[in-house]
Amino acid sequence: MPDTAPPRAGLPSALADRLRAVLGTKGLLTDQAAIAAHSTDWRNLFHGSALAVLRPATTAECAEAVRLCAEAGIAIVPQAGNTSLVGGSTPLGRGDEVVLSVARMNRILEVDPVGMTMTVEAGAVLAAVQQAAAAADCLFPLSLSSEGSAQIGGLIGTNAGGNTTLRYGNMREQVLGLEVVLADGSVLDLMRRLRKDNTGYALRQLFIGAEGTLGVVTRAVLRLMPRPRDIQAAFVALPSVEAAVGLLNRFQRLDGDSLAAFEYMARFGIELVLRHIPDVKDPLAQRHQHYALVELASPRPDADLRGALEGVLARAMEEGLVLDAAIAESETQRLALWRIREEHAEAQKREGASVKNDVSVPVSAIPELIARGIAAVRRIVPEVRPCPFGHVGDGNIHFNFSRPEDMADDAFLAHWEAIADAVNAEVRRLGGSFSAEHGIGRLKTGTLAEWRAGTELETMRRIKAALDPRGLMNPGKVVPAS
Amino acid sequence: MPDTAPPRAGLPSALADRLRAVLGTKGLLTDQAAIAAHSTDWRNLFHGSALAVLRPATTAECAEAVRLCAEAGIAIVPQAGNTSLVGGSTPLGRGDEVVLSVARMNRILEVDPVGMTMTVEAGAVLAAVQQAAAAADCLFPLSLSSEGSAQIGGLIGTNAGGNTTLRYGNMREQVLGLEVVLADGSVLDLMRRLRKDNTGYALRQLFIGAEGTLGVVTRAVLRLMPRPRDIQAAFVALPSVEAAVGLLNRFQRLDGDSLAAFEYMARFGIELVLRHIPDVKDPLAQRHQHYALVELASPRPDADLRGALEGVLARAMEEGLVLDAAIAESETQRLALWRIREEHAEAQKREGASVKNDVSVPVSAIPELIARGIAAVRRIVPEVRPCPFGHVGDGNIHFNFSRPEDMADDAFLAHWEAIADAVNAEVRRLGGSFSAEHGIGRLKTGTLAEWRAGTELETMRRIKAALDPRGLMNPGKVVPAS
Repeated sequence: MPDTAPPRAGLPSALADRLRAVLGTKGLLTDQAAIAAHSTDWRNLFHGSALAVLRPATTAECAEAVRLCAEAGIAIVPQAGNTSLVGGSTPLGRGDEVVLSVARMNRILEVDPVGMTMTVEAGAVLAAVQQAAAAADCLFPLSLSSEGSAQIGGLIGTNAGGNTTLRYGNMREQVLGLEVVLADGSVLDLMRRLRKDNTGYALRQLFIGAEGTLGVVTRAVLRLMPRPRDIQAAFVALPSVEAAVGLLNRFQRLDGDSLAAFEYMARFGIELVLRHIPDVKDPLAQRHQHYALVELASPRPDADLRGALEGVLARAMEEGLVLDAAIAESETQRLALWRIREEHAEAQKREGASVKNDVSVPVSAIPELIARGIAAVRRIVPEVRPCPFGHVGDGNIHFNFSRPEDMADDAFLAHWEAIADAVNAEVRRLGGSFSAEHGIGRLKTGTLAEWRAGTELETMRRIKAALDPRGLMNPGKVVPAS
Repeated sequence: MPDTAPPRAGLPSALADRLRAVLGTKGLLTDQAAIAAHSTDWRNLFHGSALAVLRPATTAECAEAVRLCAEAGIAIVPQAGNTSLVGGSTPLGRGDEVVLSVARMNRILEVDPVGMTMTVEAGAVLAAVQQAAAAADCLFPLSLSSEGSAQIGGLIGTNAGGNTTLRYGNMREQVLGLEVVLADGSVLDLMRRLRKDNTGYALRQLFIGAEGTLGVVTRAVLRLMPRPRDIQAAFVALPSVEAAVGLLNRFQRLDGDSLAAFEYMARFGIELVLRHIPDVKDPLAQRHQHYALVELASPRPDADLRGALEGVLARAMEEGLVLDAAIAESETQRLALWRIREEHAEAQKREGASVKNDVSVPVSAIPELIARGIAAVRRIVPEVRPCPFGHVGDGNIHFNFSRPEDMADDAFLAHWEAIADAVNAEVRRLGGSFSAEHGIGRLKTGTLAEWRAGTELETMRRIKAALDPRGLMNPGKVVPAS
């Protein structure tokens, strides 16, 4: 019975007893294996240390556990699916925190197919939420690669993005109501299912994207969307990055409602996928330098998206914005087009060392960002192989660089900081963001402090101090200590 | 030269001199006529008193003026178009505040038709913003009856709604970037033009809907949308309120992308419009008890919305959800249908006294709200004539009641509080809101304190204290003093 093993030195035994009385033996893990498993992120990049893992089964248990920890002055690291890319959901190394996992609070409490809302607990896995929506003939639109393990609480805490932001917005736009356990253990109940409610400060917005530093998200009311019944996708060859933005704009203006995705890829990325990933073919007969994957979707079965797609592409071809295009003739072909986009990360990994930047700029500034960013990095590593790709429709580019063919991984990675600085300098000049969708966690607190220095950082600190005056909620994350 | 008249007793003359040095003579109004004009709302319901009117022409002037007032401990009432329906933009009666009008800061600074954004100052009038968007072949979607005088700063401060929320969201959804002068005169610059930016707390969301109690909005980056090229509208007779929600749901599921408006009306409201408003005709041959005005719109000129509209209505008629329908055959006919909806307020006014409630509930709860609300009010005034109408698609009903035909106005209005309480009791039971789109201002601070008592109100107070510790920004509005 490992769960009843005596707590390790550090978690006061009186507190352990009180926590066990509230949470039960399943709700308080003090064995080292469980603690270690909850103290490392899924990429194994961040290794923290914790006193124990708290696993409440209800909001009441969660609130009481937080209250007991607050009373004892013990800091809490809220954790949901633990798929953060920036170390936001694992403890620091100092070993004086507890991890509070919402994984046991995973129920889908209500689906309202008429009001088109769903009420869930914070530990509900995204894929389960998607399935529950589909069972009610609705769509929960958020979709990302970790959807099989990412949980609602973490998606809210990080304001997650993904493949559908262009059409449906980030997680923020999906949340109608929220319940949060605050730093002192009180429960903030904002679980309204309303489309319109102008009654005071927009408190729920503060907790969305706060990465657990202002409280523990325990429940949410989510907005559902109608299920698409017509989906069309095309793989498009373009003469330039400018043409990608131009084509995006044509689609937005002529068919903005059904534009579901607009992803940019460069030839180099396509070649890496063709080289390293089995069973992938170039959809086009000739080689081109720039590509877009465009998808239209509509709940109208008779929307004639095929006609709309062909119409925009034909006009764009006349204007010289498009060189060639392949339209998926079946669901199998559509998934094959998406595979080319989705295998970019894996293909780049197999090609050797690379430096990655997840940045955003105003959509109209993307061509300038890519041109100047590549030029700047070439001044550092002349033979570097740029691999920019991603969500052009959101102004969000994965601005990656692979090492030169004849350079060793280590030698290239020695330039990591210089390359990131060069890219970020262009991003900043263009009014962009150094973290488009991944958040701050512990990885980027220094950059936040630098870029948001002054009134903005000071205002964030005031908010933090107002809601968590003793600094017990996920310390060291998002807003660095002053 | 009235602007250089000596300030009235109360505004310290040293402060007046310093303010005049910063703002110029056009920027500091101390004559009684100007003060009175800025101290009353447009409906002439709230009559406040102020020391002076500050009219900065730039953010720098605004910041310096706020700093000087803060130094002197003088409270500030931010004011834009002053079209608040709840007294949010006029001073209290105590006479120790200044009004800070952003009306001179009315420039449209940039339109980016590719990135689809617009940068404006807070005094820009909504109609001017709409026109600037149209000139770039884009749409700024927010639309409401006061758009000829409402200004962006106020629309942001109140998170304004209006006729297009169902399709495009409230003002909150239109704001990408924001600049705010805080209570101490520091400038919070969040003027990013990004679709994706997860770098710390969502500060801009706090100021949207805060009605100037946390700072003065001075500039904003707005999101633009594609301009619709196909618009279709229908006036639909329904057997019940349930059928209205059912038909709404059919449209959302089958044509959710192009559903632009879905407004409910009862027979009694139609009859008032026919009785009191000239040149209005019933679009349908027979009388019915319930109606919806449905509008579809799309940027696709070939979207065949007419076909979609007819298709959904035909299927709904087979299901018994629709009794009859008239589809507008021209823009003239479409505007005539909208006139029936828009003249409801005027027609009800001409019919005599009425009690109005602007409430919202989950969309699926609307039939229950209307049925139980009418029953509850009939227990107070048996012959009352209910006139519910409005934005069913947002769950937002203008739940109004006209006096009985043979009752005097005064006698009916004596029941005002009892009627409002009876409606609000049902709204609250259904998890609804007592202010769907108008905000709190000074009119509803008591209701806010009652409905949001406990952790929610306490959290709002913490936010207020963190950003405005001396309580100098629009005191007495939104969050009541504890």
